[in-house]
Amino acid sequence: MTKRVYNFYPGPATLPLPALEKAKEELLNFMDTGMSILEISHRSKEYDELHNEAIANVRGLMNVPDDYKILWLQGGASTQFWQVPFNLQIDGKPMEYVNTGGWSKKAIKEAKYYGEVKVVASSEEDTFKYIPKDISFSDDAAFAHITGNNTLYGTEYQTWPKTAEDVPLVCDMSSNLMDQVIDVKDFGVIYAGAQKNLGPAGVTLLIIREDLIDRASEDSPTLFKWRTEVAKNSLFHTPPSFAIYISKLAMDYLKELGGVSAIEKINREKAKLLYDAIDESDGFYRGHARADSRSLMNVTFTLESDELETKMVAEGAKRDLVGLKGHRSIGGMRASIYNAMPLDGVKKLAEFMKEFREENQ
Amino acid sequence: MTKRVYNFYPGPATLPLPALEKAKEELLNFMDTGMSILEISHRSKEYDELHNEAIANVRGLMNVPDDYKILWLQGGASTQFWQVPFNLQIDGKPMEYVNTGGWSKKAIKEAKYYGEVKVVASSEEDTFKYIPKDISFSDDAAFAHITGNNTLYGTEYQTWPKTAEDVPLVCDMSSNLMDQVIDVKDFGVIYAGAQKNLGPAGVTLLIIREDLIDRASEDSPTLFKWRTEVAKNSLFHTPPSFAIYISKLAMDYLKELGGVSAIEKINREKAKLLYDAIDESDGFYRGHARADSRSLMNVTFTLESDELETKMVAEGAKRDLVGLKGHRSIGGMRASIYNAMPLDGVKKLAEFMKEFREENQ
Repeated sequence: MTKRVYNFYPGPATLPLPALEKAKEELLNFMDTGMSILEISHRSKEYDELHNEAIANVRGLMNVPDDYKILWLQGGASTQFWQVPFNLQIDGKPMEYVNTGGWSKKAIKEAKYYGEVKVVASSEEDTFKYIPKDISFSDDAAFAHITGNNTLYGTEYQTWPKTAEDVPLVCDMSSNLMDQVIDVKDFGVIYAGAQKNLGPAGVTLLIIREDLIDRASEDSPTLFKWRTEVAKNSLFHTPPSFAIYISKLAMDYLKELGGVSAIEKINREKAKLLYDAIDESDGFYRGHARADSRSLMNVTFTLESDELETKMVAEGAKRDLVGLKGHRSIGGMRASIYNAMPLDGVKKLAEFMKEFREENQ
Repeated sequence: MTKRVYNFYPGPATLPLPALEKAKEELLNFMDTGMSILEISHRSKEYDELHNEAIANVRGLMNVPDDYKILWLQGGASTQFWQVPFNLQIDGKPMEYVNTGGWSKKAIKEAKYYGEVKVVASSEEDTFKYIPKDISFSDDAAFAHITGNNTLYGTEYQTWPKTAEDVPLVCDMSSNLMDQVIDVKDFGVIYAGAQKNLGPAGVTLLIIREDLIDRASEDSPTLFKWRTEVAKNSLFHTPPSFAIYISKLAMDYLKELGGVSAIEKINREKAKLLYDAIDESDGFYRGHARADSRSLMNVTFTLESDELETKMVAEGAKRDLVGLKGHRSIGGMRASIYNAMPLDGVKKLAEFMKEFREENQ
């Protein structure tokens, strides 16, 4: 029996076991080619089929309208932090950002190289415990940017802010892509590093409305421009084929479970188990995020002392509940319970939280 | 018995079977963590160890001096086509390139966005059949750039051109990294997309002399600058961990074989088998590359007619010799015989070439 633990790390993160088992089974021989998917030409018909199935999975699961393109890129969300402003800025118009934590700040930092950045809302004054309400973007912004979910602080948008018709809303969904049903039409661009809620590290998903593809200046390096990859269906150069393959397998499993609406139900059940454990702990566990901003994906809390937190991380690991240490920016504990984390793992964690509290309160 | 073929595709390309078998064996449970390498945090001690072992493998195999840094990046050689000039250009100094084929041309195209580019030598007038001799770079060039091996045309540098002491030689070694012993000190920067001769698609190796790290303008997006990743040992953001892992396993196997000097011997034997088959064919097989410029890695040749070439590709595939079709730019046939292609595969191909000629001459 292969040893497996419940992996609560924030990313790279747990993947669906059936996806890993399928990858293992065919690792030496993909689709009876006699070659590994790791060895196969990206110009072969077998790879082409897989590549397009991965795109079709995204389109089907997220109900992506026909006038949006779906791209597989490299370089992570960190690369999109500069590629978004490069591709979407308009001379003389501000780029407007909401600052909800470390990832927003990184995105803001890179945008400043491309023009005027306005931070229209922020929760920094209260250690990013909440998602600002009543966010108001200007009617003349080049675009509006938000971070859909904040892994460090455990906050997530519960409703999406509105923008004027001409102002595309851009969302970094690296840590909450497909965690619940959304209407893609609310967004101009969605981007996500795969390694949290979609697949392994090494590939970035981009969903972009067609009218936004042509803003970038022609007079710039070929790979700066999203439209280079749009024109070639993400095959302008060798794609990170294995990461796309694993993402495809993970989405196959999500489809089998019933798609995004089904996983949303499970995600809400999972999150409720942990938030209840916090709320019913009489202050033993102190939730970091405000109740109205709680993330379905990253549950953050602190304990009375660093010693107790260290003890909890160690005892969790003994029960095969690993990766519970919080990010250094706020310390404490964090349970990342992405789509691929089974309900059973969260039940085990909730039980452990109860027992640990009883023993240490 | 798992079906396996001899894969002569130019990239993504064949990998050492022992590396794939090891990856398969531990795909669900890496180093007894109970997690897949695909799921493991890039901040974990297990990943950190692997990451540094992969670097140590490069350093050991290529005998990389201490004053060179080794980086794992994303975006392929195509990204380095702009990152090289971005990081190395000096205002007022020309960037000098040698044009030996399609990859050189792509590199030259991107450099033009960063300043004056001089093409100091080219073999384009003769369909890139050779590597220019007596290449002379200016003493005042910002850097000199060459493409070490040309996958499309099957040519490879037999000796490295010299540059003035202040002019770093930059080499795209995507398709001939570690195919033979080199002295890294001859180069300022070596870069290589992994998917030909090192590992799978999705990671780019960069070897850079320390004094070249700080040329890039500070006032530019964080990820443009190589020094961002130098400062963080390629962990500024989530690395493409699985591609690094497979590259590491492939290098482990190369070490077992005896390292680069051992594989160079095998590579020369492999290439000789095929070039002999061409030279002894009485013109049935017509080598594309001039004899003084022949590649150890990609053997290119044409036959009398397209029909005969199509027939040869099909009959090769029946014998499990796949991927022999040449690139559309010159047509014909191409056998890519990277480090991971076993001698046995090349022997089988040489036999097939003999038999096919006897049947069709």
